[in-house]
This record gives sequence, C-alpha cells and structure tokens, in this order.
Amino acid sequence: MDGRTAAIRLDVASLRQAIMARGLGAAAVIDEVLRRIAAAGGDNVWISRVPENVLRRQAADLDARARRDPGLIRRLPLFAVPFAVKDNIDVAEMATTAGCPDFAYAPAATAPCVARLAAAGAILVGKTNMDQFATGLVGTRSPYGVPRNPFNPSYVPGGSSSGSAVAVASGVVSFALGTDTAGSGRVPAAFNNVVGLKPTRGRISTRGVVPACRSLDCVSIFALSCDDALTILKICGAYDIEDPFSRPTPATTRSFGPRFRFAVPDPTSLDFFGDHEAETLFATAAATLAAEGGVPVAADLAAFKATGEMLYEGPWVAERLAAIEGFFRRSPASLLPVTRQIIAAGDSYSAIDAYNAAHRLAAFRREADALWHTADFLLLPTSVIHPTIAAVIAEPVALNTRIGQYTNFANLLDLAAIAVPAGFRACGLPFGVSLVAPAFYDEALADVGARLHRRLDLPLGGTAHRLGGDMHS
Amino acid sequence: MDGRTAAIRLDVASLRQAIMARGLGAAAVIDEVLRRIAAAGGDNVWISRVPENVLRRQAADLDARARRDPGLIRRLPLFAVPFAVKDNIDVAEMATTAGCPDFAYAPAATAPCVARLAAAGAILVGKTNMDQFATGLVGTRSPYGVPRNPFNPSYVPGGSSSGSAVAVASGVVSFALGTDTAGSGRVPAAFNNVVGLKPTRGRISTRGVVPACRSLDCVSIFALSCDDALTILKICGAYDIEDPFSRPTPATTRSFGPRFRFAVPDPTSLDFFGDHEAETLFATAAATLAAEGGVPVAADLAAFKATGEMLYEGPWVAERLAAIEGFFRRSPASLLPVTRQIIAAGDSYSAIDAYNAAHRLAAFRREADALWHTADFLLLPTSVIHPTIAAVIAEPVALNTRIGQYTNFANLLDLAAIAVPAGFRACGLPFGVSLVAPAFYDEALADVGARLHRRLDLPLGGTAHRLGGDMHS
Repeated sequence: MDGRTAAIRLDVASLRQAIMARGLGAAAVIDEVLRRIAAAGGDNVWISRVPENVLRRQAADLDARARRDPGLIRRLPLFAVPFAVKDNIDVAEMATTAGCPDFAYAPAATAPCVARLAAAGAILVGKTNMDQFATGLVGTRSPYGVPRNPFNPSYVPGGSSSGSAVAVASGVVSFALGTDTAGSGRVPAAFNNVVGLKPTRGRISTRGVVPACRSLDCVSIFALSCDDALTILKICGAYDIEDPFSRPTPATTRSFGPRFRFAVPDPTSLDFFGDHEAETLFATAAATLAAEGGVPVAADLAAFKATGEMLYEGPWVAERLAAIEGFFRRSPASLLPVTRQIIAAGDSYSAIDAYNAAHRLAAFRREADALWHTADFLLLPTSVIHPTIAAVIAEPVALNTRIGQYTNFANLLDLAAIAVPAGFRACGLPFGVSLVAPAFYDEALADVGARLHRRLDLPLGGTAHRLGGDMHS
Repeated sequence: MDGRTAAIRLDVASLRQAIMARGLGAAAVIDEVLRRIAAAGGDNVWISRVPENVLRRQAADLDARARRDPGLIRRLPLFAVPFAVKDNIDVAEMATTAGCPDFAYAPAATAPCVARLAAAGAILVGKTNMDQFATGLVGTRSPYGVPRNPFNPSYVPGGSSSGSAVAVASGVVSFALGTDTAGSGRVPAAFNNVVGLKPTRGRISTRGVVPACRSLDCVSIFALSCDDALTILKICGAYDIEDPFSRPTPATTRSFGPRFRFAVPDPTSLDFFGDHEAETLFATAAATLAAEGGVPVAADLAAFKATGEMLYEGPWVAERLAAIEGFFRRSPASLLPVTRQIIAAGDSYSAIDAYNAAHRLAAFRREADALWHTADFLLLPTSVIHPTIAAVIAEPVALNTRIGQYTNFANLLDLAAIAVPAGFRACGLPFGVSLVAPAFYDEALADVGARLHRRLDLPLGGTAHRLGGDMHS
C-alpha cells in the first residue's frame, strides 16, 4: 500500500469525493480492495469472488473510458465503487448457491438490481456467505463457515446476510446487497456496526433472487452510512414489470415533519433480559432523537409481536418450502440439519391454516397500523441480544427467535426499516437500533437515521473512520 | 291498490321524486310493497321477512317524524325506500342462515352496511334466499327453494344472491344487498334484467357478513338503474376500521375520459357456444358504447380466465372451508350435497398449494393489468349461458363453472364491476353485460353503465317501467 490508498475511505460519499476531486482511479480502488481482502484472510465472507484479473481489467476499462470521455465519472454515480452481493442473488457467470452447495446453479442472467448498480459504474467484487436459504438471523447456518465478526470473532455476525454485513464493516467494499425477510438485512447490520436498509417490499426488484418466503422477501442494502444506503436504493430500486411483487413508488416522496414523533416500546413491550448496557444504549438513541427535535411517544407492541411470531410459528414456513420444494424433496440431506428442520415444518400446514393466518394477519395489521396515528416511526432495538457462536450452536432455534423479536413483523406488516449503529457495549460489541415506518417512508427513515448516526459520532463499521471526517486522515 | 299506488315506481330516483314532489308517504309505500309481495305468492325469494305489523309501524313512525320535522325527508336520502338483504348479512333480531337452516344464528348486531341504509331512512323488508354459503352462481343450491325467475320460472334466477336479484326485478323492493365473491352479485343481475354493482373489494364493510371466501368477499348492490346502485354505494360504502378487509377510498374520484376506450374480448377469448342471439346482444352493447363515444380495443383474456379457474380449482376453496370449519366438521350432513362436495375439497390443499397459488395469482395479475394501459374498462358478457333449472340439477358443477367464466376473476384481480341489462333473447329471457375496471373505478363504471342502459332503453327488471319514463303512467 502507498500513502494515497492507505487513506481511502470506502463509504460512497467519501470515495466519490476522492475520485472526482483527487483523481483516484478505479484501478487504485480495486488494488486497495484486493489488498484489504487479502489482509482479512480467511474470514468466511465470500462464497465466490470475481477473479482478480477480471476485477483489474474492469477497473482498467473504466479508467480508460474515463480518460476518453471526461463526463463519464459525473454520469456514473457509482464509478469504481466496489460492492458485494449476497449469494442468493443471481450474477451471470457466477454460481448462485443460496448457501447450499448442492443447490448451486448457473443463472442465465444477472438480477436487475445488480445490473442497475453495474450500469452505474459499481464494480462487483464477489458473492457473500449467508445463512442457508436465507433462513436464520445468526450467520452460523452455512456450510461455508461463519463470517468473522470484526468486533469479536467469538460472537455471531448475524444473518442471514452475514457475509454482506461483514464485508461492509471490514471496509473491503463500499456497500453490499443482502436480502431481508425476517430481519436478515437488519440484524447483521446491528451486529457489525453498519447501516442496514430494508426498503419497502417491492421497491427493489426480487427478480433473480432465490426466494426465501417469496411474498415477503426484500433485497436490502448494507452501507457505512444512511446517506450511502439511500444513494444505493435510488439507483437499484425501480419498478420491474416482470416481477409480480414489484410495486411502483408513489410520485411524491413521503417525509416526516421537522418535529417528528417517534414511538418507543412501552415497558410491557421491551425486555432487555437484564442487559443494562443495551438498555442504556437504547435510551441514548431515544434521547439523541429527542435532541434532533423528535417527540417520543410510548407504544404497545402487542400486535407487532403477535405478528412476528406467526412468521416461523405459522404457515409462512410452507412458503419457504414452496420456494425450494423440488430440491427439498429430492435431496433433503443437502440442507443443514437446522435449516432442514425449520423448512420441513412447512409440510405440517394446510391451506386452511394459510388462509386463517392471512386473516389473523389482516386483523393484526389493522391493530398495528393504529400506531401511525400517533407516531411517524417506531424506534426499536434491532436485537436485544448478541449471542456467541457457541451459544447459538447450543440453542440454534431459541436464540434465533429471540434475536428476531423486533424484526420479524416488518415485512408481514408491510413496513420499511433502517438499522442504524447506536454505540458499543463495554466489551467492544456494537449495538444497533432500527427505525421502522409504513411502506414508502424509506427516504424519511434514511434521513432521520442519518441525523441520529451523525449525532452519535461513531466509527463506521469496523474501520477507524467517522461520518463527520477522520481525526487522523 | 288504489290509483296512486298502482303507479308507484320503486327505482330510488322515481320513488324519491314521488315522495318529495307528490307527497307519497312511507305507509303508502309499505302498503304497496306488501301488496306486491302477496301478489308474487310463493316465489321463494324470502328466507325471513320483517313482520307486516313491524313494517307498518316503522312506516307510520317515519311519516309521523316527517310531519313533525319538515326537513327530515330531505335529510334522509332513502326515506321510505324499501330494500332487501341477502341472508348471509346480519340484521339484529332476525336469524342469519346463509342458506343453511342448521347454521342459523341470532346475530348480536346489524351489519354496518345495513345499519347505514336504515339510518338513511330505508326500510328493510326481509332477508333473501341464496345459494348456500354463497357458493354457486345458479340460485338452485338452497333448501329454501329456487327463487322464481320473473322472466321464465323454468330458468335459474342465478346465484348466489338469487333472492335479492329477483326481489328487485319483481319490483317488490327498490334495491337489495347481495354479496359477490365469484360473481354472485352480477350473474343474478344478468338473469333478472337488473343492475348488479360489485364494488371494489373493501369499499363496503363486510363486518357482519358470513364469509364465503373472506379475502375476496364483497357486499354488492342490486338496483333497477346504475344511478340507483351508485346512490346506494355512496350511502353504505364507508371505511370501517373494525373490518380488516375494509379499504379507504381515494380522495379523488377516478373517472374515464369522455372518449373512453373499452376492451372487448378478442375472438380467441370469447365463445358463445353457438348462441347467436347472445352474440348479437353482446355486439349491440359494444356498438352502443361506441355510439356513446367509446373506442373499442380487442383484448386477450388468457390471464383473466386462468385466474378465474383458480377460484374453484385451486386452494381458495380451503378459504371457504376455513370460514365455516367448526360447523362443517360437526355437521357435514347439514349442507346440500353439492355445496358439501365443493367446500370439502378445501381439505385437499396444503399451505404450499396456497402460497404457490398466491404467487401464480400475482403473476396473472401483472399480466392482466397490462390491459389497463390500452383500455379504461373491459366489456364482457356477464354470462354467455342461461340454463334451465333442470339442466343445472343434472350438471350442477359444470354449468356453474361455465356461467362464472367472465366473473370469477374479478375479485382475485382486485377489479370493480357492474352488471348492466343488455336486452332480451327472442324467448324473453334477459341478457346482460358487465363492465369491469381496476379498483376504485366504481363511480366511472356506474356512469358509463348508466349511459349504456339509457341508450338501450329497456324495461327495468321484470316491471313495465323504463329508465327514461313510462309510456303509460
């Protein structure tokens, strides 16, 4: 490494500044990315990587085009921005595994959400590790190993988008795509001190994504800042007429007022299981939002939690089985035992169960929606616990359930959410909060999330950089 | 009957005119209604009726209030307007049977849609006969007999809202509520020469309605004219926060342009099974719309028809079973054999089937929605066949399926529809068309339906009256 690349900050805003104002080239960016990946060693982040020579050629091509066409960099909002993609999202000429080697297939085409990023100049570095079939919030359910949590390798990285979150936190890519059905785009963000934007269902096309629970799946974004996450959403989020679950975004961007009201779970709805550090960090986040002009209101989360419980303790597990039914019947031994056990439960539900659950959900949704009369968004701990790998291996389902308590309901209730870093426990592990609002408030959430993140003035991911500019660079 | 009541036209607009301009009182209206009901004899229209003394007392009370309060009639848009309600909609102090005597219960409260009509001054005359559990389009699936088709008693009245349609056609009530899941609010309208408005799902609360297929059920309106149907919709349609399937109506009323485009099924999508009369009547309706300023465009209905087939040949029959599961398990012999057989099929579907069907539906909906880029609404025959009672008894399921070909898909695809009379076959049986458009175009459909109906200048229902005014009254 030389003096110029050592200081490279990979958050999109800073990287773009370095490229446009300081003449940093794509080749130098890729050199630095490859150096950092090598330095990270066997961190189990990647399931497959774009070969180094291909990456260097892509970077050289971008630089050559930029030399010939001086307007190119301005026109490509992600010129030379390195990114990663969870391995349940198709990229042509790379296998898609969904975390299950026997399931691997060669996709015919690149998923439109990835293609849009590449068209904006971003450079795909590789496909990331994940909880098999995106089923899990832990990051331990992969035959490719457990991605190493940069804050403490004994603790889980969170899942299912484990590799994508670690890749961003480790500073080897600027952002990464994940997916989020139960919280897979938020929990790993919290466990790695990065931002996790779970957009409104249908804002990013899920065409070319291996379904987990198809009617609920979202492509999600991991980034070092809320502004970056929103930048990426604006580029890869687009109505896709070929994806039946894609939805057009309303013409008018929805926003919260300057004196926004945010709901905080009332005492009956929030249990930190005696973790006073987490409790204090959460209170600090709430106080910080109040200092930003927010007015807190207490919320009863009964309907939210009852909804969340239905996701794995109800017929939606049959939607997971439906997604891979042929493979599952042919080759059940190809799945990890815990994943197989969870998904096999889908066989125990009847269509009657599915309709009854849909009706219960409609009632819960009506009940939960009452909150939006008193609050613009809901502030939650992303997860109240952060277990060790050993603890999760000992209790693989129970701890997963506890982690998902504040995330499971979001897609069932058609909510948008953003996970934002919110400080550190004394042991050095990060803690995160989530801001949750009705569908299509993605921009408003990213805006207030950015304000919270800036005020907390935390290091970005596992890097030494901070949002407001670095002390030593 | 005396001279004044003999001429009473029960369509809402004319009745109101007689009340406001000619001083017709509620008591006189009810006298005439009771006279007509008695004259109709054993027509199997009613499952239960409001006792005559109660009706007369209600009418007398209304008249007394109107004498004391001269503004009352103006304030009550349905002052003294007689109506009927299908017997799967709750009315306090009357049993709800859903066409199954053993299922009968005494509801705790009147359904809000009925309560809103009563609050507007309308007088409920009785609860109408129906295909059991609103499952069927024929009108023959009732232990209370087959409501008599006023045009030819050998032919089915259509179902499932058979009694409601016949009551309106016979001129014994001004309008009636039905329900419509597969076409139960449209087919009986066509078979009885009346208007059947199946509003957008969720516009009329379904609270207090026995579910047929709960996520798809609509309360529907039978009336003598499209204007009347819209008047009733405006009164009984309201967002109901206590009904999870209720939806708020957009603030801006959606309309078609003056030079509207209407889709007509292309030759591959339309089969009259050799019935040239029906074919000609349908062509006349299309030509009439063109004369009203409409531009016809040809439509491929493949996605619509594939959707419609899923309603009874897919997991949605399990949603029917879910609605009455406790009763069905306890007392299967209480159902008619054909109804039992159809609903029992719900047990053969798994939750996997339900989710797979939901995904297929999402794809079909995307495909079908493409039509709305080229057309404002779709013109269809409501039913291409109109079988005899004997034919339906011989082939109870196959003929029902054929009848529902052009209606079954509407609620699955979230469409609004209005069935409009469109003339008569030489034998005297009526033929009807349906106008179908995306959700919340109810007003626009009623408007263009009214224009079509006026131009066709048909008698109203089975009465001698016409829309434009009567020749002999």
